Formats: sequence, structure tokens, C-alpha cells
Amino acid sequence: MSVNVAVVGVTGAVGECFLEVLSERKFPIGGLKLLASARSAGKRVKFAGVEHVVEELTASSFAGVDIALLSAGGSVSREFGPIAVSAGAVVVDNSSAFRMADGVPLVVPEVNAGAVKHHRGIIANPNCSTIIMNVPVWPLHCVNPVRRIIVSTYQAVSGAGAWGLEELERQIKQHATGQPIERVKFPHPIVNNLFSHNSAIAENGYNEEENKMRLETRKIFGVPEMAITATCVRVPVPRAHCESINLEFERAMTVSEVRQILSGAPGVKIVDDVANSHFPMPIEASHQDEILVGRIRQDMSRTDGRGIELFVSGDQIRKGAATNAVQIAELLVG
Amino acid sequence: MSVNVAVVGVTGAVGECFLEVLSERKFPIGGLKLLASARSAGKRVKFAGVEHVVEELTASSFAGVDIALLSAGGSVSREFGPIAVSAGAVVVDNSSAFRMADGVPLVVPEVNAGAVKHHRGIIANPNCSTIIMNVPVWPLHCVNPVRRIIVSTYQAVSGAGAWGLEELERQIKQHATGQPIERVKFPHPIVNNLFSHNSAIAENGYNEEENKMRLETRKIFGVPEMAITATCVRVPVPRAHCESINLEFERAMTVSEVRQILSGAPGVKIVDDVANSHFPMPIEASHQDEILVGRIRQDMSRTDGRGIELFVSGDQIRKGAATNAVQIAELLVG
Repeated sequence: MSVNVAVVGVTGAVGECFLEVLSERKFPIGGLKLLASARSAGKRVKFAGVEHVVEELTASSFAGVDIALLSAGGSVSREFGPIAVSAGAVVVDNSSAFRMADGVPLVVPEVNAGAVKHHRGIIANPNCSTIIMNVPVWPLHCVNPVRRIIVSTYQAVSGAGAWGLEELERQIKQHATGQPIERVKFPHPIVNNLFSHNSAIAENGYNEEENKMRLETRKIFGVPEMAITATCVRVPVPRAHCESINLEFERAMTVSEVRQILSGAPGVKIVDDVANSHFPMPIEASHQDEILVGRIRQDMSRTDGRGIELFVSGDQIRKGAATNAVQIAELLVG
Repeated sequence: MSVNVAVVGVTGAVGECFLEVLSERKFPIGGLKLLASARSAGKRVKFAGVEHVVEELTASSFAGVDIALLSAGGSVSREFGPIAVSAGAVVVDNSSAFRMADGVPLVVPEVNAGAVKHHRGIIANPNCSTIIMNVPVWPLHCVNPVRRIIVSTYQAVSGAGAWGLEELERQIKQHATGQPIERVKFPHPIVNNLFSHNSAIAENGYNEEENKMRLETRKIFGVPEMAITATCVRVPVPRAHCESINLEFERAMTVSEVRQILSGAPGVKIVDDVANSHFPMPIEASHQDEILVGRIRQDMSRTDGRGIELFVSGDQIRKGAATNAVQIAELLVG
């Protein structure tokens, strides 16, 4: 069996990674359509050694397409997602456009693969920070329900797009050569600095990223009232997000129990070497799919043994976006 | 009234800052003795426009000294602290050597200035991350007791000493010029990376920095069983630590109440401009004494209104070390 795949937004950071992951995982591609805005049309992009020409995304782009992987922002998804579905494609959407919509499965394959089959044409890929948190927390939740999550993030600049990486690189060079730091798209300098995630802040005082972590996790876990609070912060790191996660369980939970559960969990790699001060770091999480988990310890602010702390790191472009979407596509095919 | 002051470790990052702060605050200095290891003896250092020669620290250095400001590490403090006290000086010690000892006040002047008068020769200056957390949390605690603190830090490299800053700067230049990243004292690369604070990890699974934040805060607040848990992380920022702080209060607490209390609190500056996405950042907290506080919001993981989240930033060399110690010296004089 082979499948006709369209990749929308192929010239972006996630789009490029889609091709990398589709090739690595030997996705059974029949035809491949690489789509982007008019500005990028005509560009040549290699896939599995063969050059493809990027075409302009139009309303007629999806004829004959079985699976469309969308990663070109919310407005493109809102406009072209339904068009792709009408043309007969199943859409795996990386934007936030449809994530919370009824009838749209929001899927982390390690958590709720079964939800895929309830789609009505669109399946949503969660926010990167959500995915990176859910992969290690879910297997624990299955053994001992998680009652509350308090998370603080350390998010890489490429989470904002390829331009975020360019902005950090440019500012690093400016700093290294004594030039003034030029701020282009981030609201503040990012070299030698960090700042609260600059997505819009809602009425509840939380920014979009923080609200996504809460609302999406509830939907993915199937626990509509799950207690979750998040603080999302951008740090001067090119790639891979980190998260400091405080978990409260229904019952007492030991460190060795957590270690045992996570050591067999899909998509998780324990990096927790106390003797060598070796724990999850962005430079090691980058360019791989596993979520690194370490600093596993009993929450010392509790006396009832129901608290566990973790520090995790995951590549937000791979598992946080492209790999997760390709895994969803594999579920559709398999 | 004027006072004979000795500064021990004057060539270090905190030592240099001592001179800056003593001068700025017009501390009533009679004699000034600048002390350091044999390696630094003979160096010339300016204070208030006048050149001073750094002398080698010896057992006879403290004759005639009224106040000794120590910032040369725990082993120097353990050796020379008692010698200075025997010579008649009051020691304000920046190391962790005496912080938890009975009879040694551990003082953040905005919190427990009164504790100074119970000293027996040595007063300890708390850990930088502790001070930065305590200044904004204490005034809230006075109105509505804090029952639990969950904190994650984003700590600047200069917290490790002047060498930390040199290591980041060197690695930034290496990255910018395509050279291999040379790791000298940090256990991992710090440019384009972050890692769990590399202090030794205790039996409870927490590193020294995390345990300090818990134990020192309990002592400073005078609440021996206070529930506190911390995750301490080093980030590629030259100066000023940030902290994501989750607070649980005895009673419900509103955001406007927090804002009102903190807007009049000593040592605190509210930076919480939602419209402009302007919150506490290291580049703005650096080189000043106030702790910047923002992202003030109700903890959305609670339904009882007893949770508040904050994001703060403070200069760990000034308020986190030198300024706090000079404030203690001022209490001794005043």
C-alpha cells in the first residue's frame, strides 16, 4: 500500500523536518506534493535523494491527495484544511486552528492513538510543549492518576519558527563582535536574555502557550477538569524545549516506581546520572525523537509521598511537531 | 561614626561588587582593607576614586577591623571567619559555611532585619536564589501565610563566579566563529544549552542549590516546617537570575491584592505590562537592587483561589550577594 502525501508549509522549520522524518521512517509514499506560499513556489527541495519542485498552495492542490500534513500556521489551516478534506484527503494539522474543536481528535500516539479513528477528516497535532510533557506523564498517569501538574518551561527559539533561530544566531554574532543587538521579530533581545513567552495573554492572565498546555492535555488525557498550571518562558537555546514538571498523584508514588514505569515507556529515555551531573539538556535532546527525563525525585514540599518532580527535554520540531504528525499519519495508514 | 571595613575576596565577582555598593550607598567607611589570596596580593583596586593595594589574607589581617565582609568561598570563611571574630570584628559572610548554624542569624534585611542583633560575631548572607525569592514572597506571607512554594529557577552563569561569565563569553565567541565549543569549568557547554544546577546532589535527590532555597527560606521566615520544593537550572544568561514561583496561601488571595501588597513592598518593583509583553527579564534586572516581579496571576490549577503564580528576576551579584551583605552591615552600624 502506498499513499499520496501533501506537505503544506514545506519550506518552514517543521515542513523541512516532515521530509526528514517521512524519509527516515520509510513512510509508504506514493505521490509527494510539496506545497507552500506563492513566495516559495518554484524552490527545489530534496526528498530521499530526489529533487522536488515546491508548488504554490491553491484550492486545487489536494486532488488525489490521501494525507495532507499542514504546517503553515492557523490561517492557512483554517482556509485550506476544509478544502483538503472536501477533496478527499485526511488532514493532519500542526496549527492550533482545530485542536480544541469537537470531532477533531487531538493525538499524541503514545497517549491516545485510538482517538485517530474518530476523525471527520481533520486530526490535530498538539502544541509542542504539550506533547513533550504528555509523553512522560501519561504512563505514570495510567498507573497512578495525576491530580495536578505545575510546569515551568525553558523553550527554544526555533519553536517560534525558523526566524527565531536566525534571530538568536544573528544576535549571538552581534554580541560576539561588539555590535549593537538588533531586535527584529522577538519583542526583546534573546541573546544573553530570556523572557516570558510572548504569545497573547488571555483574560485568566495566562498566555496562549500556557493555556494550550492546560486545555490540550485535558483533551488528550480525556480528563476535562485536570488541574494544570503552566509558566512558559523563551530561553536563548536554538532547539529542544525543557520543562520542570511537578506532579501530584492520587496515591503515594516512589522514585523507583517512576523510574521503572518510565524505563519501559514508549518515546521516553531516562537521563538521570547523579554521579556525573548528567540530566536532560537541549543539546542532547535535539535531533532525536525521545523525550529525555531526569531529576526524578520525591517532591520535598509534601509529606504524603504523592508528589514527584521531573526535568525533561524534547526536540520540539521533531517529536513536538513533525514526528508526532508522521506517527499520526502512520496510524491512518496502518 | 565611621567603621573600619575589610573586604575578603575583593577580586572576585561579588568582592568587586562590594566596593561598588559600599561606594554608592556612602557606607561610613573609616579604614578599608582589601584582602584576597596571595595570588591576588599587590593588585591595585579603585574605591571611590582612590587606589588601594590588595593585601594577602592572613591570620593577622583583622586587627582593628570592625566589620569584615567575606566572599571567598566556604573554606576561607570557615578558616578566617572565627579569626576575624576573635580579633573583634563582626563578620558578614557570603558563603554557605555558617548559614544553617545555630546562633548565626541568616538575614534578608527586608524580611528579618531584627535577627541581626542576636549575632555572636557572624551573620550569614543567604544564597542568591533564596534572597531573590524571599524579597517578594515575604510581604505576601505577612498578609496571608504561605503554605507551600514550588519554584523553578533560570540562573545566570555569573552565579558560579566570574569564571562562569568568562566561560559563557568564550563559548559565545567560539560558536559565532565556528570554532569547537571549549568546556573548561562547567560540566557541559552553556552556550546554546542549559542544564540542571551542577552542585552536588544530596540523598533526597535535590542538589545543594535546591536544598539551600528550602532550608534557608525556612530559617529566614522563621517557619521551620515550611513546604518548599525547588528545581535549579543554569541558563546561558550572563547576569540576573529568574524564578518561576508557585505559591499556595492559607486563604484565598486575589491578583489585585498581590499587586497592591507588592507595589509598596521594599526591594520590589512590579514589571507586569501585559499589553506590551513586558515582564521581568535578566537584561533589565541586571545592575540594580530591586527584584522585578511580574506575570502575577491566579494559579489556574486551583479552584479555591489560594494559589498565585509569579515570575521574578533579580541581580544575584547585587541584591543576591553584595547589596544584601552591605545592607546587613548598615543594620550593624545603624
